[in-house]
Amino acid sequence: MSVKNRLIYLPLGGAGEIGMNCYVYGYGPEGRERLIVVDLGVTFPDMDTTPGVDLIMPDIAWLEARADRIEAIFITHAHEDHIGALGHLWPKLKKRVYARRFTAAIGRLKFEEQGHPLDVIHTVEPRPAVVEAGPFRVQFVPIAHSIPESSALVIDTPAGRLVHSGDFKLDPTPIVGEGWNEAAFRAIADEVPVKALMCDSTNIFSPAPGRSEATLADPIHGLIANAGGMVVATTFASNVARLKTLAEAGRAAGRSVCLLGRAMQRMVKVAQETGVLTDFPTIIPSEQATEVSRQNLMLIVTGSQGERRAATAQLSRGKYLGLELKEGDMFLFSSKTIPGNERDVLRIMNSFSEMGVDVVDDTGGRYHVSGHANRPDLEKMHEVLHPQMLVPMHGEHRHLREHVKLAEARGIAGEIATNGMMLDLSGDAPEVAEYIETGRLYLDGSVLIGAMDGVVRNRIRMALNGHAMVNVILDEQNEPLGEAWVELMGLPETGKRGQPLAEAMEAELTQFLETAPPKIMRDDEKTEEAIRRIVRQVAVEEIGKKPEVTVVVSRLSEE
Amino acid sequence: MSVKNRLIYLPLGGAGEIGMNCYVYGYGPEGRERLIVVDLGVTFPDMDTTPGVDLIMPDIAWLEARADRIEAIFITHAHEDHIGALGHLWPKLKKRVYARRFTAAIGRLKFEEQGHPLDVIHTVEPRPAVVEAGPFRVQFVPIAHSIPESSALVIDTPAGRLVHSGDFKLDPTPIVGEGWNEAAFRAIADEVPVKALMCDSTNIFSPAPGRSEATLADPIHGLIANAGGMVVATTFASNVARLKTLAEAGRAAGRSVCLLGRAMQRMVKVAQETGVLTDFPTIIPSEQATEVSRQNLMLIVTGSQGERRAATAQLSRGKYLGLELKEGDMFLFSSKTIPGNERDVLRIMNSFSEMGVDVVDDTGGRYHVSGHANRPDLEKMHEVLHPQMLVPMHGEHRHLREHVKLAEARGIAGEIATNGMMLDLSGDAPEVAEYIETGRLYLDGSVLIGAMDGVVRNRIRMALNGHAMVNVILDEQNEPLGEAWVELMGLPETGKRGQPLAEAMEAELTQFLETAPPKIMRDDEKTEEAIRRIVRQVAVEEIGKKPEVTVVVSRLSEE
Repeated sequence: MSVKNRLIYLPLGGAGEIGMNCYVYGYGPEGRERLIVVDLGVTFPDMDTTPGVDLIMPDIAWLEARADRIEAIFITHAHEDHIGALGHLWPKLKKRVYARRFTAAIGRLKFEEQGHPLDVIHTVEPRPAVVEAGPFRVQFVPIAHSIPESSALVIDTPAGRLVHSGDFKLDPTPIVGEGWNEAAFRAIADEVPVKALMCDSTNIFSPAPGRSEATLADPIHGLIANAGGMVVATTFASNVARLKTLAEAGRAAGRSVCLLGRAMQRMVKVAQETGVLTDFPTIIPSEQATEVSRQNLMLIVTGSQGERRAATAQLSRGKYLGLELKEGDMFLFSSKTIPGNERDVLRIMNSFSEMGVDVVDDTGGRYHVSGHANRPDLEKMHEVLHPQMLVPMHGEHRHLREHVKLAEARGIAGEIATNGMMLDLSGDAPEVAEYIETGRLYLDGSVLIGAMDGVVRNRIRMALNGHAMVNVILDEQNEPLGEAWVELMGLPETGKRGQPLAEAMEAELTQFLETAPPKIMRDDEKTEEAIRRIVRQVAVEEIGKKPEVTVVVSRLSEE
Repeated sequence: MSVKNRLIYLPLGGAGEIGMNCYVYGYGPEGRERLIVVDLGVTFPDMDTTPGVDLIMPDIAWLEARADRIEAIFITHAHEDHIGALGHLWPKLKKRVYARRFTAAIGRLKFEEQGHPLDVIHTVEPRPAVVEAGPFRVQFVPIAHSIPESSALVIDTPAGRLVHSGDFKLDPTPIVGEGWNEAAFRAIADEVPVKALMCDSTNIFSPAPGRSEATLADPIHGLIANAGGMVVATTFASNVARLKTLAEAGRAAGRSVCLLGRAMQRMVKVAQETGVLTDFPTIIPSEQATEVSRQNLMLIVTGSQGERRAATAQLSRGKYLGLELKEGDMFLFSSKTIPGNERDVLRIMNSFSEMGVDVVDDTGGRYHVSGHANRPDLEKMHEVLHPQMLVPMHGEHRHLREHVKLAEARGIAGEIATNGMMLDLSGDAPEVAEYIETGRLYLDGSVLIGAMDGVVRNRIRMALNGHAMVNVILDEQNEPLGEAWVELMGLPETGKRGQPLAEAMEAELTQFLETAPPKIMRDDEKTEEAIRRIVRQVAVEEIGKKPEVTVVVSRLSEE
């Protein structure tokens, strides 16, 4: 009796959210499938849910426990939500990494920072870039996106051909890199029928066809040609095509162009070194920029999402690297604001407004285009590849759901698979095979912590409720030595009665300590609980809030 | 020699921000002007800048110090950003309050909650509603907005006529209340030339003319008529006209209508009691709703901004008041998402998507209209009132700046006045007279604290950095009694070396205590500083973060 092999798909991140992409494909007997990993990305933290956290990445415990079955890691492109966790998580897997030139170069920079070996990252050029990885034959197919050298993956398996779209748009003129090549994609499906398409869902709710990167050149050239003072433009650092358009518009308007922001300088450098970016206008260093007259200067800067330490935010606070905006200057946001960043971006726009700077953004839809396929473009891709099944990815649940509906309307078998849902693709339609426990890891300072460890939950509690700390010292007879001591942090100093809040608490605690029965005072836990209750009660009466309370009972013995 | 009188305008909130509106007008000799206050509103807190805070309101210390010069308080309408602080701040001023019926009724509910006298709130009906207040003669002029009985104020002074627009749109068919009456506004300017217009700026960046509330009836009726399962709709609780449109669409589709959410029920009740809302469809209580079949039921619920405890969020988490959404139901957001609330709203939409509920929002612009005048509507208002001066309000700096530009293009003298900038309107153009120290008060639990008190800053620090608490007990010879004790909150339990972080800190501290010179140990401040430095240093090495540190040094003396 032969063993039955199966073909599986398992998202560990990026399905049911936009961010921290990580997808697994497997082929082989159940429980012994050989695996490949596609992308290892991060999500960015926010104050509401992850204060103090530096980066969020998928919990890959499932993969780690099966590292011996992993053939390789493939990275589709160099956006942080696809490659950002590679440096942090690679040590848990220690497998070969495959990517195109630009992506591999960015990956190597990350490995360098972390001290990992650089030679495990393999560049798949020259094309046709095909990697044999166990039962998988993986082909990188260039596709346009908002970063150089984005790729779809054609994954051939003994059970059939899969296409992993990666992030993409149908852009025939992407300024940098290869444009949408419909014939090439038709050939993929003509050569071998596509069993399943795992497909980007980001822009499923955008009803109009996507616009090409090239459509921005005229509006941006026109805008900058008519500017009087200094021109500053921001966009995503990795959008090298946009940087080129912006820089060329600056040059065409007779301006010297200066790039501010490490991430952006690095992207341009890597793009040039890997040969994806050619004839980029000469750029001048910031020291030289300070000597150029305003009307002859253009800055292209990082921080389109309002990041506190990026150049845009720095300039909104005043002089930065000797450069300062003022009345009559123009600031262009050649970008969209990612949901959640609105407040930060608006704060910056208002600071510029206070300086008298004219802020131009994408409200009119003229100075930015998305890097993702819109609804009609997705339909086109469905039509071109006519897969048997479609599994949407790179989307929140509502995106995935809508994408399945769209596919089913065309007669394609669709299935929503969110993080942790393993699908069996062996048959004619996707079937849920298993639910895997997944989660998130937080990079917090230099440590990886689990999202459910309670660390961040406690930070949120302190932020919402404030923190009261109580010290009590007891002797061997459980009698207090000195009085209870209360320190407050993040709490009002005085309560309703005008008395210092800490004193009000100390008074109640002293009374308690003087009268508490030995059976409580003998027991640390009971004593702490009683103290905590008293502190909360005083707080509720005085300030109408229940703080977090930490109690330390010190017991001193005669030495 | 006669004393020179002047006419002043001073925003204390709402100018340079959208929220917590509070404007002051004054007339009389410099420093002795008689004053009136227009609106006392709140802003809502967020986790990024104001964690744990319940409400934000203008710091009215300037007014409080001049309470003897205040003639009265006028409230233009019952939105929280105009009336929300009335109950909290009124005790600082204790002046008569004037408002129209609906607004006054909402104000009285707030006063009831706070135990303030109800009879200080005066209803200005029947019209023409004119209030004499010292040198001011204030007339309430109905104007459409997204709440019943919004008013512009025509403020006559010995120095000329002012118009305070309040929040408004040029809606001839607002469903509830009086529509835009161009003739009435032309008459205001014909009667007495308008010296200055203080004008809503919210939608200055919206290029198309605003749409009437009435335009929503057809799309909403159509949407609900075609729905299969249960229909749930949310909008702003105070948008009584929208509630009416929604409820009528439900009724027209043969559905029983149920309102969920205290705020919404209150608004409808007050609107009916004050006579502004008539022939609202019969509503059924939630207990009864559970017995109605899904296809015959419509819920209208609070929580369009994703508020955690409102009905929308409750329903997104599962059963609420016996009602539960499921596959085939429809949820309509007849609202826009206010910047900053995107994440919360999207989270809820995705929860509904997981339930199989079809979520409809305003993406296509069919199911919501704004309550504010768009750019062409503002131009119309400028044209109708042709004021000598224009001072924009109700906007962030970028809105105010753009509004001044728009006015100046028409030859009107404009001036940006943000919170605390007192303008002298006596002459032909606004002149900055003075800068007043302004700020924000936080309602935190039951206490009002100043934004600059450091309380909230410490909460943010604990949230970002975690909190380490150290206890050290010293005897009279400055010798440690027992070992240093460290408690951590919001910090990883173990560091790089795998050792518990608190233990690593305690070990370093014990070593310090054993060897520290007496000149440090004698001095609490120096000891604390040294301890804090050690704790931070261990933290940086172990976890790559600098926590907040609270040190308590207890000194025990022989008794």
